[in-house]
Amino acid sequence: APSHTGTRTNYGDRGMSLEAELNESNQYYLTNGIAVIHKKPTPVQIVKVDYPRRSAATIKEAYFRHPSTTDYNGVYQGHYIDFDAKETKNKVSFPLKNFHEHQVEHLRACVQAGGIGFAIIRFTNEGDTFLLPASVLFKFWDNQANGGRKSIPRADIEASGYSIPFQLNPLVPYLSAVDSLIAKKK
Amino acid sequence: APSHTGTRTNYGDRGMSLEAELNESNQYYLTNGIAVIHKKPTPVQIVKVDYPRRSAATIKEAYFRHPSTTDYNGVYQGHYIDFDAKETKNKVSFPLKNFHEHQVEHLRACVQAGGIGFAIIRFTNEGDTFLLPASVLFKFWDNQANGGRKSIPRADIEASGYSIPFQLNPLVPYLSAVDSLIAKKK
Ligand SMILES: [Mg+2]
Ligand SMILES: [Mg+2]
Repeated sequence: APSHTGTRTNYGDRGMSLEAELNESNQYYLTNGIAVIHKKPTPVQIVKVDYPRRSAATIKEAYFRHPSTTDYNGVYQGHYIDFDAKETKNKVSFPLKNFHEHQVEHLRACVQAGGIGFAIIRFTNEGDTFLLPASVLFKFWDNQANGGRKSIPRADIEASGYSIPFQLNPLVPYLSAVDSLIAKKK
Repeated sequence: APSHTGTRTNYGDRGMSLEAELNESNQYYLTNGIAVIHKKPTPVQIVKVDYPRRSAATIKEAYFRHPSTTDYNGVYQGHYIDFDAKETKNKVSFPLKNFHEHQVEHLRACVQAGGIGFAIIRFTNEGDTFLLPASVLFKFWDNQANGGRKSIPRADIEASGYSIPFQLNPLVPYLSAVDSLIAKKK
């Protein structure tokens, strides 16, 4: 319907990245006492630091390190929450190369330890956002290792994941989908 | 007893910081499928990055930012775990100035959301390490704001906290104390 498309376009026009929208959403959840979920700082290998008098220490040489975990974690209703956010320009599938092996292994360890793991995937062309349970990601990941396809079809994400509508307060209301994951866990 | 003192001295002699011992312990817990708990990267404000050809991007100017959370979090038996590690040279009490307001507020928000929060405190002179439940920290923190004492007496930490023995594999077996916190929660 035209109005639906209109809404999508509006939000797309804001030009906010998924990450920025998630950070704003997490701030909303925190301020309202709903959940405590933060993005982790970018890991940096610090090599050289200057300590000038009367002013702040300045890092003069440092390098980006590969993160050993996902970007987001925290607590919601006592549950440990762990996820990564990924955007793709692809229309019909989500390429698995957007994930690093260590991120998938980290999610696996978290789920093994009783946490709730997932990915938040946005198809930027259409502006559609989904929560994909870690179990579905693992299935496609392991299948790829055995010669299977290198991407998850959008149809599978729609079928096995949860569509996250655009709204205000919070912009990305992904905890509603997490409610469904928690209900399934019980 | 002399042998006990001897053991303490041995461990002290290793010269490992509490943080290094915790990182090793967390690696043990991870490798053995017991828990997934990581130290967060140091938050850095990146100002200038060089992208030389054929080599890694080099950060040329950056500044340390104040962390908005505690240093460690993760998942153990489905429970969200959140804590900070602090060392003090004091012998009879732990000075509250070792905590920043935002760290205490973060711990409060985590506990409010159903997580398990605490501090791991080491008295470096004696080499004794304790897990102090967040609830006890909050009591002394709020009391300080109302004109109360600026430190937590070691006697109170011994009475309301859990002594963490030195051992190998892991070096700091703090999850045994967390078991007690989980049992109390039920
Ligand atoms: Mg990411
Ligand atoms: Mg610390």
